[in-house]
Amino acid sequence: MILYDFPSNISIKNVEFCAKESFMKQVHAYAAKAPDADLEPLMIERRDALANDVAIDILYCGVCHSDIHAKLNDWGNAKYPIVPGHEIIGRVTAVGDAVTAHKIGDLVGVGCMVDACLSCPTCGDHQEMYCENGSTSTYNSKDKHLGGHTYGGYSKHVVVRDHFVLRIPEHLETAAVAPLLCAGITTWSPLQHWNIKKGDKVGVIGLGGLGHMGIKFAHALGAETIMITTSPDKATDAKKLGADDVLISKNASEMQAHKGSFDFLLNTIPVKHDLNPYLQLLKRDSTMVLVGAIENLEPMHGANLILGRKSVAGSLIGGIKETQEMLDFCGEHNITCDVEMIDMQDINTAFKRVQSNDVKYRFVIDMQSL
Amino acid sequence: MILYDFPSNISIKNVEFCAKESFMKQVHAYAAKAPDADLEPLMIERRDALANDVAIDILYCGVCHSDIHAKLNDWGNAKYPIVPGHEIIGRVTAVGDAVTAHKIGDLVGVGCMVDACLSCPTCGDHQEMYCENGSTSTYNSKDKHLGGHTYGGYSKHVVVRDHFVLRIPEHLETAAVAPLLCAGITTWSPLQHWNIKKGDKVGVIGLGGLGHMGIKFAHALGAETIMITTSPDKATDAKKLGADDVLISKNASEMQAHKGSFDFLLNTIPVKHDLNPYLQLLKRDSTMVLVGAIENLEPMHGANLILGRKSVAGSLIGGIKETQEMLDFCGEHNITCDVEMIDMQDINTAFKRVQSNDVKYRFVIDMQSL
Repeated sequence: MILYDFPSNISIKNVEFCAKESFMKQVHAYAAKAPDADLEPLMIERRDALANDVAIDILYCGVCHSDIHAKLNDWGNAKYPIVPGHEIIGRVTAVGDAVTAHKIGDLVGVGCMVDACLSCPTCGDHQEMYCENGSTSTYNSKDKHLGGHTYGGYSKHVVVRDHFVLRIPEHLETAAVAPLLCAGITTWSPLQHWNIKKGDKVGVIGLGGLGHMGIKFAHALGAETIMITTSPDKATDAKKLGADDVLISKNASEMQAHKGSFDFLLNTIPVKHDLNPYLQLLKRDSTMVLVGAIENLEPMHGANLILGRKSVAGSLIGGIKETQEMLDFCGEHNITCDVEMIDMQDINTAFKRVQSNDVKYRFVIDMQSL
Repeated sequence: MILYDFPSNISIKNVEFCAKESFMKQVHAYAAKAPDADLEPLMIERRDALANDVAIDILYCGVCHSDIHAKLNDWGNAKYPIVPGHEIIGRVTAVGDAVTAHKIGDLVGVGCMVDACLSCPTCGDHQEMYCENGSTSTYNSKDKHLGGHTYGGYSKHVVVRDHFVLRIPEHLETAAVAPLLCAGITTWSPLQHWNIKKGDKVGVIGLGGLGHMGIKFAHALGAETIMITTSPDKATDAKKLGADDVLISKNASEMQAHKGSFDFLLNTIPVKHDLNPYLQLLKRDSTMVLVGAIENLEPMHGANLILGRKSVAGSLIGGIKETQEMLDFCGEHNITCDVEMIDMQDINTAFKRVQSNDVKYRFVIDMQSL
């Protein structure tokens, strides 16, 4: 059993805890056992709720491109078997004695993190994703309770520290909320951090899971929202999502016409690409934020930053406080993701379709199918 | 005569003006007639002072690495004959009727710009270097008065619009002030813009003309100032200049020890290089500013920005208002550049020595030699 394959540095306390089988339960999940293996059914253990824990029966889980990167070990840190999934929606089935913010029956969400130190200055600033002692990812991180590594939302049940459990507005379409926990907060957080407001001209680069939420949020915040894409055939969809206009980045004269005019660029391209044409779109003192490309980029020319005091920045998901603020904002403005529902058994096909950009704009797994 | 080789778009008014030879005078200068030619003596014309002009006899002119790039046509926009020089110190010999800020006999400076529209929002923000209608560089820009292109400070005399003429503190070592007009403001401006203050940990990357001023300014502003260099033999000098410590960027364990600890990085490296090791030195939400490398950089990895919401920015010289503030600050704190004096006739040797980093830290031409 992989749960007893402890890393050498696990504490005696945890070993003792894990050895008490009564504190765990078996849960159905889908896992890949190697980078080139399909996902397939696997029974995993979940701990019973500790004092600060919330136990959740999972209703829906979004399929993020990161799930595929992780499964393929593209980032070199995958642990197998891997159970992906960090866009989780479910109902609370139990809470620990110290939990006050959630109760049995609540509709809740869990995103990319399930723990952090909550004591460092960065956690104190509500930026748990940058925790100075390392946050615990929903899957593929060291599991400090059970040993081994954490398992994600491609499963029937999960137990999560209360701080990392979000309240979900009941009136929204529940399945379509799931991707807000990653695609939503990843685009919301930079728009908030860089203070995007009514009247700003915002470009959203790339129309996928992240980009489609970037458009919805920038539009809802009152920005003049321009979809920037290589594909003219995405124009109609982009406008339905809230874009005021569409800029085709392969069209040199269109790019020239928009040169130096953007207050902010949200770059959701998930692969290696050339930043230079986009930097030329920025106004003086403006910023392009990367939220997708966790990989090497094409060489950037210094002049594109120096001439106009421009910036390229990055942003990783968002903190728990701002994730709740985003969910509340979505509740007020009736914002959800555009999703295509799948059964758990369809996941391997769904992965292939994500890789070929064949989804509008996020798959969500109906966990009843498992 | 190149002065009559008007660009096609020059206005009739200027043509009429240029045709009146009595409004010009001949001035000794040093110029290159082609990228691969040495600089050599050349007589050039300067206009007489118009209503808003200040006429200046040049005492000293610094030798900036940009002078060499421009002469070699490295940026593809060189106009020949080229008279470089944008770190000019001199005495006022005449002022136009509308000039109130300067008078005959004043010690003044001229930096990288001699004109801008002064009517766009960017000029209104005192950021003339980013003028939306294009600022006029001290050399190699279109000369709207005489036609042809502007000539820089490798000459005996210059006439400049009053707004672009700086007051120089009389008590400083005059020759050592010259490089403040480019190397000084280029490092001062980002330290001000990013609000560097007492207690911040600031890294200055690269110890040349820019870097040595970056250290002096960061130290004078009260920052914990770390010189970051590939060369251990620069440590002693860096500490003399005001660095609290020296970090050798080739030393992996030293780099690891400083990881995630810097509030700000001032990157003065003038050539293509790898940004990634430096980005890992930054704290969350911190910025590295490029002021030297107006060229293609090595590929950057997106994770180095995304993990920690870090930024890479650029900054170009600085505005006239902040240049005067810098000069006043230098007057109060007795800050000048470390310079090596040369005669005008030594300029071609000096260029070669700059290219091989063989100068501490800026050559300044004594214009009496011309």
